Order: sequence, then structure tokens, then C-alpha cells
Amino acid sequence: MTRRPKRCVAAAALAFILTVAPSRLGRTEGQGSPLFGVTIPTGYRQWELIAPSHEAGFDELRVILGNDVAMRAYRDATLPFPDGTILVKLAWKHVPLAEIAGAFVPGRATTVQIMVKDSRRYVATGGWGFGRFINGEPADEAQHQTCFACHEANARAHDYVFTRFAP
Amino acid sequence: MTRRPKRCVAAAALAFILTVAPSRLGRTEGQGSPLFGVTIPTGYRQWELIAPSHEAGFDELRVILGNDVAMRAYRDATLPFPDGTILVKLAWKHVPLAEIAGAFVPGRATTVQIMVKDSRRYVATGGWGFGRFINGEPADEAQHQTCFACHEANARAHDYVFTRFAP
Repeated sequence: MTRRPKRCVAAAALAFILTVAPSRLGRTEGQGSPLFGVTIPTGYRQWELIAPSHEAGFDELRVILGNDVAMRAYRDATLPFPDGTILVKLAWKHVPLAEIAGAFVPGRATTVQIMVKDSRRYVATGGWGFGRFINGEPADEAQHQTCFACHEANARAHDYVFTRFAP
Repeated sequence: MTRRPKRCVAAAALAFILTVAPSRLGRTEGQGSPLFGVTIPTGYRQWELIAPSHEAGFDELRVILGNDVAMRAYRDATLPFPDGTILVKLAWKHVPLAEIAGAFVPGRATTVQIMVKDSRRYVATGGWGFGRFINGEPADEAQHQTCFACHEANARAHDYVFTRFAP
């Protein structure tokens, strides 16, 4: 069977793929988390910033990034977040910058933590699946049993999500 | 004069423009900074994360974002940064999260600070132009006179840029 290539469509599709797809399609890396089967989404490090945070209790600087579905929901103030929303929290040790007193910067990376919205799959946990990764490997089941209880107790009014958009 | 449209090129270009251009082209907003004429680049809030920081002296959480030229330079460890590099630092007050003891999140936005690399235009300041903005308006000339001296004294070995990529 032969097909005549539709070159214009192909050119447009290629331009799209080269510019957007590597960082935004829903591919994943590595092993899934216990209980939830959440995996690390490919290209998350290029996702858009929602907000930074500082966890003094863990001595960590953190940043929360979102995929396109997440960012649209934040910008439109959509609650609950739609299925397909993915939030990724990156964390590093909070270390002093040698040159400037009082300035702190990211040290060693500690965890990557992920929330995935799938209201059917994760019906028992507010529609959210959770994944906590250390050096790309999921943490144990005991750690994953604690995620939702804290989000439920403290962030229920914002669809179980702590992070607000930092303008 | 009539020209025959090159539809494939046009389709590819349109796909590129629709997907990338709104946030990444070099358009700017508002008034330029004193001394340097640096303006706020359109769409900078969608730029990619380089790193967060915490300035205890200013009681601020901060995030540094970069345009595509900047991110390529960081990923390839290119020094000095090439002309066209733009770095944007967003800053917010460092405020406690009511629900979690020891957690701090962005409060009121304070400043947006910009570094633009143009080795010919800014030859007297290491190739960098600086802009410090409060509510979208540039700070005064006196504040802009202090930028380079501090970067020169403390970050010369990294092309006058403090921020390192947080993996």
C-alpha cells in the first residue's frame, strides 16, 4: 500500500513536536509509587512555575511546577483541578550562599513529589494519586500512606492542594 | 507584484508561533530601567526555572527564571553567557503557611529583577544590563548604580551571575 504524504500537515506536526512535545507529553520515567502507581513524568523539570516554598522543618527550599492542565486551572481559578492535572514538587537542602550573608540557595536535591489528578482512579483519596521519589526511586509504602491524610486535614478547601499561584 | 505562498513553510511557522512564540519572543513591557534601559520581557512568568532562593535579609522567597538562550547556556555549562541571555528574578515576602508549622510560602510580590546579556551595549558592566522593577515600574537610578558592583565583587567567576541551575 502506498500513501501520498500530506506534507503541510507533516511540517506543522513536526514543528509542534520539536518545540513542545519533548517536555509536555504524558510520558513517564521509572517505577511507580506504592499504593498509587504514580510515575515521574518525562520533562517535568521544564514545566512552568507555580510557586516556591521554604520548609524550615525539613531545612529545604522547594519549588512546585505544573503541567499545562495544572497551569490552565491555576490561571482560570478552576476548582476542583481537572483530571490530567500533574503537580511536581522539587526539593533541595536550604544551604547558605557563601558570598552573601543571609542568602540561601538550593543544595543537594532531596525528593521529587508528585500529585496526579484522576478522579476515577483515585476516588478514595480526593481524586489524587501521590508519588514521593528519592533519587528517582519511589519511597516506601508507609510514606505514601501519610500523604492524603495531611492534604485532607489542611488543604481540603483548595481541592487538597496546598500551593497557590505566586504571581 | 504577486507571490505564490509557500504553504508548508507557513503551516510550520504558524504551528511554531502558536505554541512557542507568545511566551518566548523578545517583546517587552513598559518603561526601561535607568542607566541600562532594560525592560520587562513579555511572558517571562512562563519561562523555565533555574532555581529558587531565600533572602533572609530581605525576608523574601525568590525564584530565578531564564529565557531559552539562558536555559541552553545553563544546560551546556556555557560561560560566559551568550548575548540574548535574559534572567528574571521574582521575589515575594516570605510568609508562614498557616496550616503547617515551619512552612513558608510566597506573600506579597516585591520586585522583579532582570539581567540582560549584550556584550556590546553593556561593555562597562561585564556585558550585563540590569533592571529592578516594583509593581512594573523601574526603581530609581541610585538603586541601579549598585547592581554591578555587587555582582562583580561576588560572582565574577560565573560571568557575574550568582544563580546556579538547581537540578
